[in-house]
Amino acid sequence: VICGYGNVALELCKILIDNKNYIIEKYNLDLKVRSIVGRHGQLYEEKGIDLAALMELEKGSSAIEEYAKQKGLTLKTNIVFDGDVLVEATPTDVESGEPGLTYALKALDSGMNVVFASKGALVTNYKLISTKAAELNLKINYSGATAAALPTLDIGENSLSGARIKSIKGILNGTTNFILTEMFANDICFEDALKKAQEKGIAEKNPNLDISGFDSGCKLLLIANRIFNKQYDISKVDIKGIDKLRIEDINLAKSGGQTIKLIAEARFHGDEVAMKVAPLPVSRTDMFASVNGTNKCIVYDTIEMGQIFCAGGASDPMGAGAAVLKDIINLYK
Amino acid sequence: VICGYGNVALELCKILIDNKNYIIEKYNLDLKVRSIVGRHGQLYEEKGIDLAALMELEKGSSAIEEYAKQKGLTLKTNIVFDGDVLVEATPTDVESGEPGLTYALKALDSGMNVVFASKGALVTNYKLISTKAAELNLKINYSGATAAALPTLDIGENSLSGARIKSIKGILNGTTNFILTEMFANDICFEDALKKAQEKGIAEKNPNLDISGFDSGCKLLLIANRIFNKQYDISKVDIKGIDKLRIEDINLAKSGGQTIKLIAEARFHGDEVAMKVAPLPVSRTDMFASVNGTNKCIVYDTIEMGQIFCAGGASDPMGAGAAVLKDIINLYK
Repeated sequence: VICGYGNVALELCKILIDNKNYIIEKYNLDLKVRSIVGRHGQLYEEKGIDLAALMELEKGSSAIEEYAKQKGLTLKTNIVFDGDVLVEATPTDVESGEPGLTYALKALDSGMNVVFASKGALVTNYKLISTKAAELNLKINYSGATAAALPTLDIGENSLSGARIKSIKGILNGTTNFILTEMFANDICFEDALKKAQEKGIAEKNPNLDISGFDSGCKLLLIANRIFNKQYDISKVDIKGIDKLRIEDINLAKSGGQTIKLIAEARFHGDEVAMKVAPLPVSRTDMFASVNGTNKCIVYDTIEMGQIFCAGGASDPMGAGAAVLKDIINLYK
Repeated sequence: VICGYGNVALELCKILIDNKNYIIEKYNLDLKVRSIVGRHGQLYEEKGIDLAALMELEKGSSAIEEYAKQKGLTLKTNIVFDGDVLVEATPTDVESGEPGLTYALKALDSGMNVVFASKGALVTNYKLISTKAAELNLKINYSGATAAALPTLDIGENSLSGARIKSIKGILNGTTNFILTEMFANDICFEDALKKAQEKGIAEKNPNLDISGFDSGCKLLLIANRIFNKQYDISKVDIKGIDKLRIEDINLAKSGGQTIKLIAEARFHGDEVAMKVAPLPVSRTDMFASVNGTNKCIVYDTIEMGQIFCAGGASDPMGAGAAVLKDIINLYK
């Protein structure tokens, strides 16, 4: 069941079509989309929606309506949670967490695992959701809410099994990294760099969630909660954005052989985790300095395995759709 | 059961002591070492060897003998494969694959999963070992044989589930990367850089496996076989080392804004995988150029998720021991 039919859900459906045989062969999994919930109700076909036919139609919720019309189906308004996995891909609302929160909780109550592509429900109600999932012996995955194609959670969960993690540090937001890269490379002020990002479709019209550092803070919180087994609230993250950064700050860093990056860091000490987001100077020989444009990165510092640095992952809806698919497949391993 | 009690096995035992409670809490796993096979026979205690007592003794096989003596035990010469997991950590022999090959096959026949820290058995007999494991429904993991703490296999297997991988490219050998870094940074010839690596204990007295590119080729083969589900032989890898590289080659690259790295690359096309190891020029703005000293890296290029670049991981026995532990824990997930 997919809730929300925006760009990420659309790309997920495309990949499910293109990679169908590959997924069956490699994982012995024949994934079907039984239901998609759009703005006007739930499209439901027990044997699976014909995704190829759906792709022939317009994008978004109107496609759902049109598909239903063509097939003589009625969109359900009392949503049915019938399947193995819910993909929560509704627009993110970091105030209420809705409608994703309600969908996720109902899915868990119906015995479904949940894969989150959007972060609203988790940021507002991590404790509630993770506790319920654990009680019901169900799984939640949320790569799509924590930098998507960049394997932020996977490294901590799989590649460092048994090692003790001291800190997690990353550039977790592509939009702000693009702005900082522009300011540094082209010697332009924050406002001009933001405008360029908006013109390129990288920053949203209302860029506040990104430039305030809040989006980075949310991702950091969700990564740290999972990796350090905590249930912290977003208020625990000390957040400073890039909106007050002046070109003089960039030039000062530059003259000292540094650049400025919006760094999100979670550091474990005692039994507590300190979480912080702030624009910080970084040496130009540091790997973080080579992460430019909309590129993102994460570094885990451990006692036994040293530092593991990871960068990249497509910052687009296809990358996000593929991250959701990854989370689904990994539920079955 | 641990076969081979060298530095990696020793570090594994130390981590098992230090992280015992952490592993029980986090993974609900109480790992015990029931047996260690050294040069003079097998130490066996059904209830688990007292690792803390073992650490009080000398290193290596003499510690095994001394421990047995203190406890009034006799080292077995007919080795018993009695446990859930074999850790194959004998010295690597890339000609015969022995003694690891015999140990691994016997362990599989006894119903044990196998975690490889050394690569001899896999490089010489990948097809035999992987086929047998599959037939018996057992698992083999071998992070320790494919750059250890750097998560070369994990990214391909977990972080890219469902995505199609076009190529895998990496700097997989720390010794040669150290030599190339020295040649580039200090303008010294190959022989002097090698000597420095030997003095620092980075290169072995007989450095041929590293400088010929063979070690990189072995790692590339084992990664590609697993990720692309192949059973290729090492003869399929086109290998060129750094032993004939002159300082003039480095300087030529330098003057063109490049550096030279020993690149291992596996590229998927059609249904085949082409594998190649060679010293190649790399732009100094490329992420590969920022991987220096004994540091290693890997990059996966995919259709859906773009490029995922990963670097780091401690290049020492503790990192290798931790990679073995990771593989063991991940068997139980």
